[in-house]
Amino acid sequence: MTSPSLPTFDDVKAAAARLKGVAHRTPTLRSSTADALLGAELYFKCENLQRMGAFKFRGGYNTLAQFTPEERKRGVLAFSSGNHAQAITLSARILGMPAVIVMPEDAPAAKLAATRGYGAEVVTYDRFTEDREAISQRIAGERGMTLVPPFNHPHVIAGQGTAALELLEDVPGLDYLFTPLGGGGLLSGTLLAAKAMAPACQVFGVEPEAGNDGQQSLRKGEIVRIDTPQTIADGAQTQALGDITFAIIRGGASGIVTASDAQLAEAMRFYAQRMKIVVEPTGALSLAGARHGGVDFRGKRVGIIISGGNVDLANYGRLLGSD
Amino acid sequence: MTSPSLPTFDDVKAAAARLKGVAHRTPTLRSSTADALLGAELYFKCENLQRMGAFKFRGGYNTLAQFTPEERKRGVLAFSSGNHAQAITLSARILGMPAVIVMPEDAPAAKLAATRGYGAEVVTYDRFTEDREAISQRIAGERGMTLVPPFNHPHVIAGQGTAALELLEDVPGLDYLFTPLGGGGLLSGTLLAAKAMAPACQVFGVEPEAGNDGQQSLRKGEIVRIDTPQTIADGAQTQALGDITFAIIRGGASGIVTASDAQLAEAMRFYAQRMKIVVEPTGALSLAGARHGGVDFRGKRVGIIISGGNVDLANYGRLLGSD
Repeated sequence: MTSPSLPTFDDVKAAAARLKGVAHRTPTLRSSTADALLGAELYFKCENLQRMGAFKFRGGYNTLAQFTPEERKRGVLAFSSGNHAQAITLSARILGMPAVIVMPEDAPAAKLAATRGYGAEVVTYDRFTEDREAISQRIAGERGMTLVPPFNHPHVIAGQGTAALELLEDVPGLDYLFTPLGGGGLLSGTLLAAKAMAPACQVFGVEPEAGNDGQQSLRKGEIVRIDTPQTIADGAQTQALGDITFAIIRGGASGIVTASDAQLAEAMRFYAQRMKIVVEPTGALSLAGARHGGVDFRGKRVGIIISGGNVDLANYGRLLGSD
Repeated sequence: MTSPSLPTFDDVKAAAARLKGVAHRTPTLRSSTADALLGAELYFKCENLQRMGAFKFRGGYNTLAQFTPEERKRGVLAFSSGNHAQAITLSARILGMPAVIVMPEDAPAAKLAATRGYGAEVVTYDRFTEDREAISQRIAGERGMTLVPPFNHPHVIAGQGTAALELLEDVPGLDYLFTPLGGGGLLSGTLLAAKAMAPACQVFGVEPEAGNDGQQSLRKGEIVRIDTPQTIADGAQTQALGDITFAIIRGGASGIVTASDAQLAEAMRFYAQRMKIVVEPTGALSLAGARHGGVDFRGKRVGIIISGGNVDLANYGRLLGSD
């Protein structure tokens, strides 16, 4: 049932070679408190400590690094107001190519300014009257720029898989792996690495409770599209998996569990208080899902991928203070 | 001018062997934003990610691991309401020995409970009418327990030096090193490692502006004692260096600079926002002092030791939110 366009573990290894010396090899942290709490040996892969604060840099850079010289000259375009935008912007700057980011005109001023500050051209649109995909296609067409989607692209997925590759180098033979799940780029890449490096490893995705389209899709055997979910996990507010990510997830994931916003807040406070790391709501999905998702992994070795740490400091401070 | 009781680099190496597999080898993190801000190559040694959240575990464990069988049986005593208490408690638990921690009866209930929860016996005293040293000496005498001081002890200092040893293994030949400075255990241990491993490295301690007894001591050539300083850096509210730490610091430090509470808060916010790590006020001294202390290290390779990450979550949340 695999389609010829699906990326493979060889693509993940090639991505790792491209990223060497460019991306951080992020640390794998332990916490005896977390081990005691969950009754297992936990290994936390800290992509919140990645460049620009999230794993997205891996996929973005891996994609842009494979542009032809002509494509590089014309540049890259992305629509996103989140970590994908920052990943593309930073990767383009490193590779010396122009970047256009299409963002809603009512995006937080700080985000617009930060994206411009990193060197991207920001094109805004009216979320209520305009269609970002149409705008992006028009600009891409006019300027000959290459559009890079946030997750449903083989090079993006291969890049995201390098986080799990590093984790499985650090801790060979993990029994379980939990990753946050939005559009499925990280989970897909993780599956490519895990199936090759630790075939017995059971890999779970964790979605926001309010947006369990992935869970529904697995159950139904086809991609289910939902309304944009209301959740603090802003990086997992996707409406549907892509055809590539769905094919990989369907073929390899052991399951998809969910976590509520309250469970995400609890996990974020745990990370700050006990592990001294700042984790964004989406990044906390994996721990929250491992803790509350009903998967029995007692006594086993469990990898937890923390996808990112980009928070609004005022909101984050309130969340920590409201315990 | 060295006294025969001063620890040496060999003691640091022996401590590293004892701590192997017991303490975390904490990561050394980079931040291109920090590099740009300070105009240098910065290497952050993250002892906030150490067990119990601070470098103090290194010195505590290294000391307790050298107890004789008879001393182990009788146990250890410490007076502290901060990271030293937790370091001794955790080390004693690992080594299977009894521990008594002497704490003021008005210490935060959470701290008293946590210390008991970790398995120590807590003895409280009235800060206004009782002398903690006298109480500690009495208990130690009655029970034959060994008192471990927080910094002025060769085994404690040698243990603390293992953080810099690891950093200099990761980044050989650093040009500058900044460490927080309270009683001088961390700075002394750092000097032992740096003088042996990177003789040209200039090592600076950073004190709270409100409590610059170390700076005064270096200037005067003798230990200066001050009133307990009012600062958010609760781990550096010491009144004076010890004779051992002063001898090592006087013999090797390139200088002592200070940081204000506002500069510490700024550094803590920077760590959370840009580097996604939780750093306690005392732990932020090194970056704040590097940034504002007037030492010119532009273009150089600079180590920043982050000493700990134990914060009160409510206060920390308020600090982050008040930007």
